[in-house]
Amino acid sequence: MNQPPDIYAKQYLMTAGPTPLPPAVSQVMAEPILYHRSPAFIEVYARSLERLRTVFQTSNDVLCFAASGTGAMDSAAANLVVPGEPALVASAGKFGERWKQLCDAYGAATVALDFEWGERVDPERVDTALANAERPARAVFATQSETSTGVLNDVRALNEVALRHGAVLCVDAISGLGAVDLPQDDWGVDVVVAGSQKSLMCPPGLAFVSASERALAMGAENPGRRHYFDWALTARGQREQPPNSAFTPAVTLFRALDVALGLILAEGLERVFARHALLARAARAGIEALGLERFGPEDENANVVTAAALPEEIDGAQVPTLMRDTYGITVAGGQGILRGRIVRIAHCGYYGAFDVISALSALEMALRDLGAQTEPGSGAGAAQRVFTEAGVAPEPVG
Amino acid sequence: MNQPPDIYAKQYLMTAGPTPLPPAVSQVMAEPILYHRSPAFIEVYARSLERLRTVFQTSNDVLCFAASGTGAMDSAAANLVVPGEPALVASAGKFGERWKQLCDAYGAATVALDFEWGERVDPERVDTALANAERPARAVFATQSETSTGVLNDVRALNEVALRHGAVLCVDAISGLGAVDLPQDDWGVDVVVAGSQKSLMCPPGLAFVSASERALAMGAENPGRRHYFDWALTARGQREQPPNSAFTPAVTLFRALDVALGLILAEGLERVFARHALLARAARAGIEALGLERFGPEDENANVVTAAALPEEIDGAQVPTLMRDTYGITVAGGQGILRGRIVRIAHCGYYGAFDVISALSALEMALRDLGAQTEPGSGAGAAQRVFTEAGVAPEPVG
Repeated sequence: MNQPPDIYAKQYLMTAGPTPLPPAVSQVMAEPILYHRSPAFIEVYARSLERLRTVFQTSNDVLCFAASGTGAMDSAAANLVVPGEPALVASAGKFGERWKQLCDAYGAATVALDFEWGERVDPERVDTALANAERPARAVFATQSETSTGVLNDVRALNEVALRHGAVLCVDAISGLGAVDLPQDDWGVDVVVAGSQKSLMCPPGLAFVSASERALAMGAENPGRRHYFDWALTARGQREQPPNSAFTPAVTLFRALDVALGLILAEGLERVFARHALLARAARAGIEALGLERFGPEDENANVVTAAALPEEIDGAQVPTLMRDTYGITVAGGQGILRGRIVRIAHCGYYGAFDVISALSALEMALRDLGAQTEPGSGAGAAQRVFTEAGVAPEPVG
Repeated sequence: MNQPPDIYAKQYLMTAGPTPLPPAVSQVMAEPILYHRSPAFIEVYARSLERLRTVFQTSNDVLCFAASGTGAMDSAAANLVVPGEPALVASAGKFGERWKQLCDAYGAATVALDFEWGERVDPERVDTALANAERPARAVFATQSETSTGVLNDVRALNEVALRHGAVLCVDAISGLGAVDLPQDDWGVDVVVAGSQKSLMCPPGLAFVSASERALAMGAENPGRRHYFDWALTARGQREQPPNSAFTPAVTLFRALDVALGLILAEGLERVFARHALLARAARAGIEALGLERFGPEDENANVVTAAALPEEIDGAQVPTLMRDTYGITVAGGQGILRGRIVRIAHCGYYGAFDVISALSALEMALRDLGAQTEPGSGAGAAQRVFTEAGVAPEPVG
């Protein structure tokens, strides 16, 4: 008996990390590996370090670690937390919680300011908490785009609050850096953490910390209890001429990074941000047209991940499973307390208009499979209208 | 005017990490990236964890970190060192020194037992040092193959000494694991650390720790001051069914690892070790035929890197530069105090007979360029004889 062809066999990745890779990024990893001390690699390494500065919008050395994004977060806690001293964590989701675990692990007197998952962190409450602290907090840890909910926090406002109280803001921009504007030096943010596998269009395995001189000095005054993640050690190597990684760098991932950053700069940061904004607007329009509520506050800047609340009458946990197993489109469901309650469509990195249209179409189809009533094409149609009105179907360079 | 063709344009990598990748390993990294929670990746991940057990010759969970090899060493110090308590480091080269830096960073009362670079660590002196310590050392840190000198330490003897004094041995086998036999469970070694980019034929960026239950318990009794490198956290995730990485795994590197470990197991561990032994014998024969002294003690088990002492009458620092820039063959020179004094030919990982013959040939040619007298083909010829006598030109599977 012949098996009918599986018309949904093509696979689409719509999660907030790992995100799809541009073909040029994938291909460069198949080239012969380079010795990390060879002129050929040093050229890639030095260029990547320069390109990172541009993408981070900073004159800082962007410190690079072979690690998951959490490794860079760990480095921030290891360098900034002084055992027994207060550190404030403003958390509204899974990745905010991670800052708490890290501050606790490094012995901080952690001041946990928790918001509901799906809320935005309120800078005024951070202000009050800092004002009421028994001793001044050295650092405030927060999240730019909370991947677990799709909510974007107001980094600029949080930074102003932190600075007013003499603290450094340390922001996890792992998923959002390169999707949503975060002009670090203009805003005067002391520490920005990012990862390779989200908006930066690379595989996971590289993690970044852009730390101001002030933050580096705080680390230097607080030595010990770290080596691999010591900021001073990595900064010293990167500042040599030519730059020299403190430990064997992940050379294959650096070649990917070099190509990916080149594509981002060829597109131009402003256009990259505008593309993400348009993709997110289309995703939001599609979700509303399907009669779903967007999860989280209205926010035209929340352009990294779009989360939709799922109807209570269907088994929400089945939505991502169906979308993946039946239609070949991988999106994320809810994590922790949000399991089964939301679906998250990511559009951070190498995404264009038809990625969002495909994801919305699969969502429509899955919802109908589970008994919900939607008019076929209503979600995809709403997204189309957004693109048509914008006069452009935005596509990344690559 | 026509440029003559550069007949030495082909590039050969003969360093002890990164080492060359088998084509199948390179190619798999160019495939579309996988979501780390997808069934397709979980299959790769679970299979890699099983294959690691076989290659480490252990029933331990081999803990995996997205990191350089030093990250896994860092995890060992972070989990095992109790601030203020003694830790013994037996060091005879650059990578032994790293254990001291790590133990110091984590606040150990480090007992540093230093040997000359180029010597083997003497288990008897370790025994004496442990016996004379004011308080018992919890752990002994040592190196299997000291990449900076090519010297192989006697892990079995060091382990017996450590166990006799109630300490765990923690061995850096980053370059040697998969090249030289280290039957962890048979010998009862508590902690073995390795990295992806040496004998395991993968790019840098994955690091491994195989820790016994006893070592894991020592870590668990010594909590805090770490998160990303916490053994318990990573072990807990890997022990879930299906296994679940505590942090986003470096999915591309895991696909490479899965393929590379498959090639190692297809060749068979015993044959892999025999191939490395034969390559090293040929390298040693070639060096001796060139009238060079081998650096380090006579040792038929030192099969990871072969170091040659360079004649004093030539400018030794030029040898690796000439070999690379003129002949396209990248080998490492000496590091630190050995700069200009030795050249190191690596043969750990994806190396066959003609890699060693090519490296020896380039070494011969470079030595003559610098004024040394050698009969053309003497080094290569000596290596050929070794292969012919063995009745085989060993080639890796891949």
